[in-house]
Amino acid sequence: MGKTTAGRFFEDYRLGEVIDHAVPRTVSGGERALYHALYPARHALASSDDFARVCGLPASPMDDLITFHVVFGKTVPDISLNAVANLGYAEARWLRPVYAGDTLCSSSKVIGLKQNSSGKNGVVWVRTTGMNQHGQAVLEYVRWVMVKKRDPKAPAPETEIPELADVVPADQVVIPEGLDFTGYDFTLAGEPHRLGDYTVGERIDHVDGVTIEEAEHMMATRLWQNTAKVHFDVTARPDGKRLMYGGHIISLARALSFNGLANAQMIVGLNAGAHANPCFAGDTVRAWSEVLDVAKTDAPGVGLIRLRTVATKGAAFELRGEDGKYLPDVLLDIDYWAVMPV
Amino acid sequence: MGKTTAGRFFEDYRLGEVIDHAVPRTVSGGERALYHALYPARHALASSDDFARVCGLPASPMDDLITFHVVFGKTVPDISLNAVANLGYAEARWLRPVYAGDTLCSSSKVIGLKQNSSGKNGVVWVRTTGMNQHGQAVLEYVRWVMVKKRDPKAPAPETEIPELADVVPADQVVIPEGLDFTGYDFTLAGEPHRLGDYTVGERIDHVDGVTIEEAEHMMATRLWQNTAKVHFDVTARPDGKRLMYGGHIISLARALSFNGLANAQMIVGLNAGAHANPCFAGDTVRAWSEVLDVAKTDAPGVGLIRLRTVATKGAAFELRGEDGKYLPDVLLDIDYWAVMPV
Amino acid sequence: MGKTTAGRFFEDYRLGEVIDHAVPRTVSGGERALYHALYPARHALASSDDFARVCGLPASPMDDLITFHVVFGKTVPDISLNAVANLGYAEARWLRPVYAGDTLCSSSKVIGLKQNSSGKNGVVWVRTTGMNQHGQAVLEYVRWVMVKKRDPKAPAPETEIPELADVVPADQVVIPEGLDFTGYDFTLAGEPHRLGDYTVGERIDHVDGVTIEEAEHMMATRLWQNTAKVHFDVTARPDGKRLMYGGHIISLARALSFNGLANAQMIVGLNAGAHANPCFAGDTVRAWSEVLDVAKTDAPGVGLIRLRTVATKGAAFELRGEDGKYLPDVLLDIDYWAVMPV
Repeated sequence: MGKTTAGRFFEDYRLGEVIDHAVPRTVSGGERALYHALYPARHALASSDDFARVCGLPASPMDDLITFHVVFGKTVPDISLNAVANLGYAEARWLRPVYAGDTLCSSSKVIGLKQNSSGKNGVVWVRTTGMNQHGQAVLEYVRWVMVKKRDPKAPAPETEIPELADVVPADQVVIPEGLDFTGYDFTLAGEPHRLGDYTVGERIDHVDGVTIEEAEHMMATRLWQNTAKVHFDVTARPDGKRLMYGGHIISLARALSFNGLANAQMIVGLNAGAHANPCFAGDTVRAWSEVLDVAKTDAPGVGLIRLRTVATKGAAFELRGEDGKYLPDVLLDIDYWAVMPV
Repeated sequence: MGKTTAGRFFEDYRLGEVIDHAVPRTVSGGERALYHALYPARHALASSDDFARVCGLPASPMDDLITFHVVFGKTVPDISLNAVANLGYAEARWLRPVYAGDTLCSSSKVIGLKQNSSGKNGVVWVRTTGMNQHGQAVLEYVRWVMVKKRDPKAPAPETEIPELADVVPADQVVIPEGLDFTGYDFTLAGEPHRLGDYTVGERIDHVDGVTIEEAEHMMATRLWQNTAKVHFDVTARPDGKRLMYGGHIISLARALSFNGLANAQMIVGLNAGAHANPCFAGDTVRAWSEVLDVAKTDAPGVGLIRLRTVATKGAAFELRGEDGKYLPDVLLDIDYWAVMPV
Repeated sequence: MGKTTAGRFFEDYRLGEVIDHAVPRTVSGGERALYHALYPARHALASSDDFARVCGLPASPMDDLITFHVVFGKTVPDISLNAVANLGYAEARWLRPVYAGDTLCSSSKVIGLKQNSSGKNGVVWVRTTGMNQHGQAVLEYVRWVMVKKRDPKAPAPETEIPELADVVPADQVVIPEGLDFTGYDFTLAGEPHRLGDYTVGERIDHVDGVTIEEAEHMMATRLWQNTAKVHFDVTARPDGKRLMYGGHIISLARALSFNGLANAQMIVGLNAGAHANPCFAGDTVRAWSEVLDVAKTDAPGVGLIRLRTVATKGAAFELRGEDGKYLPDVLLDIDYWAVMPV
């Protein structure tokens, strides 16, 4: 292979090691426009400079998931090129909005390692931080993936499983500086429901469905400079199918949740996330949500809502079978904090 | 459905009511680039800042149809989510160019209502106004749609059918402030034909054809934040087909008309428009035009040309059958004013 | 056809004639974002403003191939609308980077003509120059195409075959003003290999593959305002296939070459190029490269690497059959100079 990188294998990771990921990326109105073309995204704060200014921000920030995808995309060549499975997310916090003109890069610290009993692969936990051009952190999250070993006979590292919070505590969520919902315009935002209108346990069927094309998920995945072969190359899997980047479903579910959660303006924390089943072109994706919690913040008029949003090819509100496993139609199950006017 | 909006039904509209539509949108070079990727758009004024400056504008404006689509898209959740048919357009005037960085929102006034004899649905006429961040109107138009009733037994409103002009009079068309074609460069614009070279009744076959893909029309429709299910969800129609947003064909026809109408630089009025037949992915679309009228303006070097442009899957210049109905291959028939150098 | 242009035929060209091409184009972050969505482009200089500033440039330039495609696209209506074949490129030099906000136009001088013995068509050589809004040349290249005659009986022009350099001499390549690789960050760029790590004759298999969709190549080709029918219209060819714009494969091959050539940051010269076989949607494209030469420059830390990059549907390192012809799986064979840190 010579100059070409085959990516890291399980035995290449060292506990405590910090990996600076390549290819910084400047984002612009182009990324925002493409985001709107690829997903039915309508949350007003990420759509309108004026709406954002009324809410105390200098301009409309990039959708929080643009930040996530760009930061995540950079980690792929170092973390998940040889991943067998993307196992989970935890302790994600958005620390600062990203605006057109900002340049993002990311780095990851290896915080856990556990070789599987088969000896053929192992689980790697990393804490990834995304930074802007001023060296300010914009996002951090923990992700763990199962990675192949190059050589099954390579010695197993000492097992270290990090302790991770089930939920980012509401008082550790970071509200963007200046965010102020006291002048919030519910008509422009699209729905009248404020935080007090939601009750814990309430479930919302977001109704709309989107049938996905190959060109769409590939354009999205490339836009984030995510290079994992399985998304692009029909020869990469025995079934000749291109596996959709899991983040594509996260963005689709979030955008579909507008209908019922139009005022959940920004995602500020991701407590957990599971890609329950793979998604392929031709699938029609729907979403439903459940209110898990609500909380106060110190920012004027700004509350927090904790949501589970599920993307599915099947019926709303169905999640797990009698065996406790995700039903085959369920694609995604995420648990997150969003800001909402009180 | 709880928090989710099912859209308005016929009995929800009141004559004279003003509906402020949600989700303002800031446009950028991103929307322009996507417009050029989605349509074979080549009119120089919407392509080049320098060309626009020579024509007296501060920069290249967004294509007039970007303005139309963004303003229209916002109305969909309130006006046409439960529409059975998009019946027509009238009295559309572009009032001010839109530039990168502008934020658009829109509102609609209900100006007509007529329940159909079946009692199952009715026609709603709205006059929609698009505004920029300074509260200046950028576009207004009348549209009428047939909307389902939620409850067939709901009482019929008093019938009010608005009187609409067949044609926007040439002297009521608004020419963008500062527009000046005295230094117009026909070589850079792509064709030598000025207004005086066209004769009323002249027909032009625009020759080129475009075969449309699902990913393309869905990306376009989403870009305008148009949420109508039938465009995106294969389960939304009994035939499993995704119906193309009619505006996609308007943009396609306009872009194809470059070949023969390269100097019809900006659409400033839409007198009428009919989506004659539905369009689906795989269709190959062509266009032809007929010169309906010409007129003078007070702006230096700027004339007006009134055009019919027809999008079709069939042969040029065929429009209606012996029964007076549109032929099955005809997709779109629009009647509009454009500015052209004299 | 009336007002519509059918394009030029072989007998319409005159030796020495200069053709100014239509439709200037202002590029923005939108074109860049689309480029990243359409190709797996990761070279850091065209991705990050900050990386570019550390390298002495005022901001991240547009990918060099965006410049190429925009300049090339403008020539299509005048040069290759009636082309039977795109025969070759030579003497291409990028003369100045293009930045967001720049407006490009192009003109071509006819430098060679040769009617084919059949009398049905002939070869036209043009030297095309792309210019920015300041009238500064940004790119020049020679291209030759075989063009149909309108009238086979039209008299043949005097044959003139231009003398073209096999390779742009290294000392005639233009290094962007200010480019300085002394502070180059190899970690952010993605690979540790500097110019000295490559040896002439070395071959690199870029490993990754991309399966192409119709929507992708059509969006790309339209983005460059390339209007050749065969790319868009299933009725334009007897086989009902849409032929992919050859430039789409150039960009795809270049982007795929990141894996192994991440530090070949900018293309500054194109010595030769052949579209060996046509590419269609559904094809899975891979790339491999061979180092042809290395050279010094006067710019601090900046060297030149001369590369052959081949795009193929088949195996790496296979190029020609025993008959000396390109193998059927080979799509593209280009020979170019790129800048690389020494």
